[in-house]
Amino acid sequence: MGAHTACLFCKIVGKTEPAVHVYEDATCIAFMDIHPLGKGHVLVIPRQHAQKLDELDVATRMHLFAVCDRIVGAQRRAGLGVNGTHLLLNDGKATNQHVPHVHFHLIPRTGTDSLGFFFRMLLHFTGLFGLRTSAATLQQQADMIREQLQQAGPHAFAEKVH
Amino acid sequence: MGAHTACLFCKIVGKTEPAVHVYEDATCIAFMDIHPLGKGHVLVIPRQHAQKLDELDVATRMHLFAVCDRIVGAQRRAGLGVNGTHLLLNDGKATNQHVPHVHFHLIPRTGTDSLGFFFRMLLHFTGLFGLRTSAATLQQQADMIREQLQQAGPHAFAEKVH
Repeated sequence: MGAHTACLFCKIVGKTEPAVHVYEDATCIAFMDIHPLGKGHVLVIPRQHAQKLDELDVATRMHLFAVCDRIVGAQRRAGLGVNGTHLLLNDGKATNQHVPHVHFHLIPRTGTDSLGFFFRMLLHFTGLFGLRTSAATLQQQADMIREQLQQAGPHAFAEKVH
Repeated sequence: MGAHTACLFCKIVGKTEPAVHVYEDATCIAFMDIHPLGKGHVLVIPRQHAQKLDELDVATRMHLFAVCDRIVGAQRRAGLGVNGTHLLLNDGKATNQHVPHVHFHLIPRTGTDSLGFFFRMLLHFTGLFGLRTSAATLQQQADMIREQLQQAGPHAFAEKVH
């Protein structure tokens, strides 16, 4: 897979860096963003190190899309992003991609969080990031999402697709 | 398909509203954003009217992801977004989704356009949008992307996936 020793997300894949995990399979993992732009903000990344989507093969890319789709559903059933979710991939250095390892942002919104959202987004873009959300809060959200994923069954989504 | 007579994007699907088209198939269409956040900004939408991704069936959702992936590749081969592209779905009213019909934004960036990008994004979020790009310029960009899609072959991507 070619993990990069200096890459934060490769370290999270390799479990040498802590993260609040939500999902994992042979191809990808998902975990909570420690600087969430919305309550329940999840990152989905391939295990393989790649900066941009086009460095991955097409099966891996399609798998990532499918897992994102499935997690957005689980977030909503857990009450996160019921009225809206941003699905965002900043794919490449020119897009203010701070960690050079492909990562999809799944950002639930509430409809009344615009001011805070813009402020946090500004901090993200500048690289300042701001305050972290506590690990306990992230763990609680991760548990809610994970429970919804499990209720849907581990292969529910894949069976529907193929 | 249940087209909504008041929906701008249903009108574009039905060709009663003009747009600079890039791609179409039985499930979806793609056209140039008239208020681009980056040079070569494309929107990908399902023909079927739905406000949120979860109102579409899973095969349609996966097809939309696959078409987005293919168009990002074509944009890059056309020189648009070589150093980065935002893939963004604002899925639901709480995400400042201005047109209530599912649409993926594929926004090429150049790496030197940050100030203009933020200004245009602010206009987008406020609903002011700002100046349109001329139809002639959009047509030129669409032709470049379409040429790359055709060189890859109409079914090149689907064959790789399945």
